[in-house]
Amino acid sequence: MRKIGVPELDDIALGAALLGAGGGGDPYVGKLMAMNAIDECGEVSLISPDEVPDDALILPVAMMGAPTVLCEKAANGDEFIRLYEMLKQFYGRDFYAVVPWEAGGVNSMLPFVAATRLGVPMVDADGMGRAFPELQMVTFSIGGISATPLGFTDEKGNSAILNTIDNKWTEDIARAMTMVCGGSVSIAFYIMTGKELKEFAIPDIVTYSQTLGRVIRTAKNVTGMTPEEYFLKEASGHKLFTGKISDVLREVKGGFNFGKVEILGIGEYKGNDATVEFQNENLIAKVNGKVKAVTPDLICIVDAETFVPVPTDALKYGKRVTVVGLECHHLWRRPEGIELVGPRYFGYDVDYEPVEILAKKNDDKEESK
Amino acid sequence: MRKIGVPELDDIALGAALLGAGGGGDPYVGKLMAMNAIDECGEVSLISPDEVPDDALILPVAMMGAPTVLCEKAANGDEFIRLYEMLKQFYGRDFYAVVPWEAGGVNSMLPFVAATRLGVPMVDADGMGRAFPELQMVTFSIGGISATPLGFTDEKGNSAILNTIDNKWTEDIARAMTMVCGGSVSIAFYIMTGKELKEFAIPDIVTYSQTLGRVIRTAKNVTGMTPEEYFLKEASGHKLFTGKISDVLREVKGGFNFGKVEILGIGEYKGNDATVEFQNENLIAKVNGKVKAVTPDLICIVDAETFVPVPTDALKYGKRVTVVGLECHHLWRRPEGIELVGPRYFGYDVDYEPVEILAKKNDDKEESK
Repeated sequence: MRKIGVPELDDIALGAALLGAGGGGDPYVGKLMAMNAIDECGEVSLISPDEVPDDALILPVAMMGAPTVLCEKAANGDEFIRLYEMLKQFYGRDFYAVVPWEAGGVNSMLPFVAATRLGVPMVDADGMGRAFPELQMVTFSIGGISATPLGFTDEKGNSAILNTIDNKWTEDIARAMTMVCGGSVSIAFYIMTGKELKEFAIPDIVTYSQTLGRVIRTAKNVTGMTPEEYFLKEASGHKLFTGKISDVLREVKGGFNFGKVEILGIGEYKGNDATVEFQNENLIAKVNGKVKAVTPDLICIVDAETFVPVPTDALKYGKRVTVVGLECHHLWRRPEGIELVGPRYFGYDVDYEPVEILAKKNDDKEESK
Repeated sequence: MRKIGVPELDDIALGAALLGAGGGGDPYVGKLMAMNAIDECGEVSLISPDEVPDDALILPVAMMGAPTVLCEKAANGDEFIRLYEMLKQFYGRDFYAVVPWEAGGVNSMLPFVAATRLGVPMVDADGMGRAFPELQMVTFSIGGISATPLGFTDEKGNSAILNTIDNKWTEDIARAMTMVCGGSVSIAFYIMTGKELKEFAIPDIVTYSQTLGRVIRTAKNVTGMTPEEYFLKEASGHKLFTGKISDVLREVKGGFNFGKVEILGIGEYKGNDATVEFQNENLIAKVNGKVKAVTPDLICIVDAETFVPVPTDALKYGKRVTVVGLECHHLWRRPEGIELVGPRYFGYDVDYEPVEILAKKNDDKEESK
């Protein structure tokens, strides 16, 4: 157990933006909410999954909907108290701790709000190790853990407890409810035991976020290697490309941000080109038409100088960026994981291959000579 | 208390079609479900509101969504058992009886399915005395009774308990859930005590439906008066017009059937014309441009010979019809009732006046001379 106060939030939020892999929403507004809540209610006790008793129940929390809407009608924190009480009544039991559902993007910050307002610890773990667009896309699903009973509430006080026949139905019904309630709501779901958490959650992800944030923040000060070398080494990143954005295509369909960015190589990549396609998150990266990384591995576009993550909605012509692949958690690489969030789920007719293999295999620099 | 078996269902369904006032869905498919359920589980005990103890809880039940969808993916009756059990767990109490939420249209029949499958009585009452398109449009709302906790389930087994800040939010959220679950679901809501039921429900409506059905069925056999005289007398109907349909305009907007039918007078109405405008249900009837009846009074279009109700989706060119106004229940005529379902709610810039006054006031036959 360690205490997380306001000073720690900056690095965690910066790391969470990288883990957003282009999506997940800007953690900034969530950070403001977390700062405010911690100022008011005190520091958060961050515990490791090992500290949760096997038979204790833990409560994953998140916001659902469009992060851009959250900016305009921010949750006030009562939502998590309402969710906790509703589900406590339903289960007839207390919950030992909250846990992030999604460590990438804005959902990295809301569990701090919940934990401090509820006065319970927060577990250093999540269900993704990144960001994904739909409720069923968690490693918890691989463990056969049901998303329901799901607690749902909006900032006005409307609420529901939802039970569905599978986790995709949870997504569909809760999404419809979210839209009619104004596009952004708070939820608690995938309630599980400490034993299940230890088996199917991604551990230490908050600490990893904090490390990533610190690395980005301090890269320019390192000695003995270039900032980029330091960033790639500390983040265990696979560099895929560096270039200047030459085109961005965007389309909003069914509430999702679809799009594609085209990048022309600079420096060692001069004469080559890359594309990254996204649906909220970056899903597939190609260099000279060859796949270099694909979901569920993380495809992160960062500023070429500062390594600050560039979310898909900030991609613009002329910006110099580096595309970095991060290896996803090994749970995602199981067949059930690939079925849930692999390239074919998102409509790409390619098989999943790990980024550490793809990044080496199709070496564009060799071929373009 | 009296027993309702399969033989009684025909007249009740026929009367319910008249109370549908053009909408509410064809009771036919509901009747088949009720017949099947009664065959399997036995007759239903129909009790009067006075037979419900003041402190007992009663459970209004209904289907939500498009009745045309119900025809294709009919509920199987397990829905009501699931709803009952969910809400029983939530309240920690049993329910004394079920009660129809809406006596007009297909929702007149589903409470029979619920009652016989659950083995509880059904109360001879409802919250409308007719049909209306939205969840908050019940006399229960006039009594300040909350629509929630609302139990929701589809035929697949998805379910929810919903709590909202007002009854319009119940409508909006449950409507969105219904749409994503395939357009037709089962709900239980407006849970109230026997005391509240006696004050804010419309009593004896099932028996009234049965009477109306019998009157329509037997009108052709009466002696001493014309079938029409008999029908109008027994139904306490105000005859507004008889004519031949000359045009029907329809438009589907936001899941509702909007439209207008034009009728050219025949017989004593020759040389006059009438229009009836509808949103699912008939909302306003005019003769020679003058309002003769308006919601919440019932505007019923019936076959000019047989008095069989003609729902809005069966209106067609050349059909000979009679337009009849029925007085709505006096609860609807309170200011809160007119605000909820009066002409201005539906976008008509006219004040509510009772049909028994309007029908006499603008006497078109006199004026057209």
